[in-house]
Amino acid sequence: MELFELVKAAQKRIEGHAHVTPVMTSRTLNDMTGAQVFFKCENFQRMGAFKFRGAFNAMSQLTEEQKKRGVITYSSGNHAQAVALVGRLLGIRTVVVMPDNAPVIKREATEAYGASVVGYNPDETTREDICRDLENRHGHTLVPPYDHINIVAGQGTAAKELLDEVEKLDVLLVPCGGGGLLSGCAVAAKGMQSTCRVIGIEPEVADDATKSFHTGKLHTVKNPPTIADGTRTPSLGNVTFPLVLEYVDGMKTVTEKAIMDAVKFLLYRMKLVVEPSGALGLAAILGSSVKPKGRVGIVLSGGNIDAATMKMILDS
Amino acid sequence: MELFELVKAAQKRIEGHAHVTPVMTSRTLNDMTGAQVFFKCENFQRMGAFKFRGAFNAMSQLTEEQKKRGVITYSSGNHAQAVALVGRLLGIRTVVVMPDNAPVIKREATEAYGASVVGYNPDETTREDICRDLENRHGHTLVPPYDHINIVAGQGTAAKELLDEVEKLDVLLVPCGGGGLLSGCAVAAKGMQSTCRVIGIEPEVADDATKSFHTGKLHTVKNPPTIADGTRTPSLGNVTFPLVLEYVDGMKTVTEKAIMDAVKFLLYRMKLVVEPSGALGLAAILGSSVKPKGRVGIVLSGGNIDAATMKMILDS
Repeated sequence: MELFELVKAAQKRIEGHAHVTPVMTSRTLNDMTGAQVFFKCENFQRMGAFKFRGAFNAMSQLTEEQKKRGVITYSSGNHAQAVALVGRLLGIRTVVVMPDNAPVIKREATEAYGASVVGYNPDETTREDICRDLENRHGHTLVPPYDHINIVAGQGTAAKELLDEVEKLDVLLVPCGGGGLLSGCAVAAKGMQSTCRVIGIEPEVADDATKSFHTGKLHTVKNPPTIADGTRTPSLGNVTFPLVLEYVDGMKTVTEKAIMDAVKFLLYRMKLVVEPSGALGLAAILGSSVKPKGRVGIVLSGGNIDAATMKMILDS
Repeated sequence: MELFELVKAAQKRIEGHAHVTPVMTSRTLNDMTGAQVFFKCENFQRMGAFKFRGAFNAMSQLTEEQKKRGVITYSSGNHAQAVALVGRLLGIRTVVVMPDNAPVIKREATEAYGASVVGYNPDETTREDICRDLENRHGHTLVPPYDHINIVAGQGTAAKELLDEVEKLDVLLVPCGGGGLLSGCAVAAKGMQSTCRVIGIEPEVADDATKSFHTGKLHTVKNPPTIADGTRTPSLGNVTFPLVLEYVDGMKTVTEKAIMDAVKFLLYRMKLVVEPSGALGLAAILGSSVKPKGRVGIVLSGGNIDAATMKMILDS
């Protein structure tokens, strides 16, 4: 099936389960830039981030047998909570593999949504090995955080909905971690309106995807020191990298200062709580990585931020 | 004219100038309470609070002569910014009287919207005297923060819009400072649906309106030590007190802890930035001052919070 058809099918599948999140605007920002900026507010999505879309799209397509055996994933962030919540909604047992040193708060949040958390020592093994072992022993199905076409198609529904509502965009700015959201949104945007330029945004200190995009060769980065924790993934994936190369028009990086300025603008001016990774698109505008012109879409990808991070940003 | 007609007229007058703010819900809160709670998000109103409604309704009704002479008000909070912004939009010169010891940030915010700020020494004179003096000398028209029927009618449009959208409510919870928002919303709610109970909420340490309501005699409180700065007004007014007695069904108080818990719930769970005064309605539910049943409306009255207050709440 054509990829855009997969996004449309995902949109039908998640209907009534995911929120159709609101699109918001800021008169102040429009006056500052001379552009018209439309924010797709995935911070208001269920469990607080776009990840619910992909997890629901992927998990609802499992066979009855797979559902009975349960699913497994590795993540200490939003994807873990998305899988746990979707598992609860669909009656699927979920196991989340997390390093032993993951913050207790993330472990508890994932457990609160109903998942079992399995710890591992990252010095002794990798999360992929742990997952494979559990897959083999218990027949769990792996729901990867980004590198699967059903995840990509699900995330793409965010851009599909945005263009359903605002109709025309000159450019769409999308945060980039593992590239699931970016490639899905690019497929959706091009399917809706081929003239819409799609730009992926990542932190300057975690610019693996930007390098990969410009060289055509997969670059990786290890534990990049960015406040945008959702983009600390080492690289694009086997599924997302080719899609980014084919559908995305450009990649831009932003400084840590621009990210924090964006989070503060969203808090103080727009009254929105957005996590650092979710604010990358606005950071690109505030930090002059992208010169906004015409009608600009921005995906605010999530709003899950802890008190320590928020205080650090308020003090910045 | 019947009072509810004034609210309807105000709604027409502010159309296209004020935002029709969104109504949001929280699955988590509904699950916790068994009720259906609808939040009217005035934190997304222009300049970040409901105060824009009343200021626009009052100032747009001034005569050409009054507009030419300019307006004056006293406030160091949201009303000052509302008057300043409306003045800019309508081409009316605005003067805001503020104590010399008001925070610089508030003075600057008001000036940024285009008002002239006049300071005074609160040990030597009162803001009312300063205003009267300027009224007499320059012919400025006073736009009071709450105690005027055109202000009351403007603020009531918040509840009117909420009931336009959600149709039926069993109870409506409204923050109470000087009573402009509360009395306006009560008039609007009763006009829309006479069975809707309207409850005013104020901080336990600033319970002048609650006492006034229960005794029928005007109580005052001086500089109450509440984090909810929008409710530090000394008492209800000559216009608002009789309206509160006639239209409001009950008054409840909330602790400072409940207020901070409500702000945190809105930040972490709903991804909304709401100032302490704006969170009083939710505080009444979280702190068990009100037992929510059926369909509950809550006016989140504003979102203007500074970094110091936000950090204090995050640490609480």
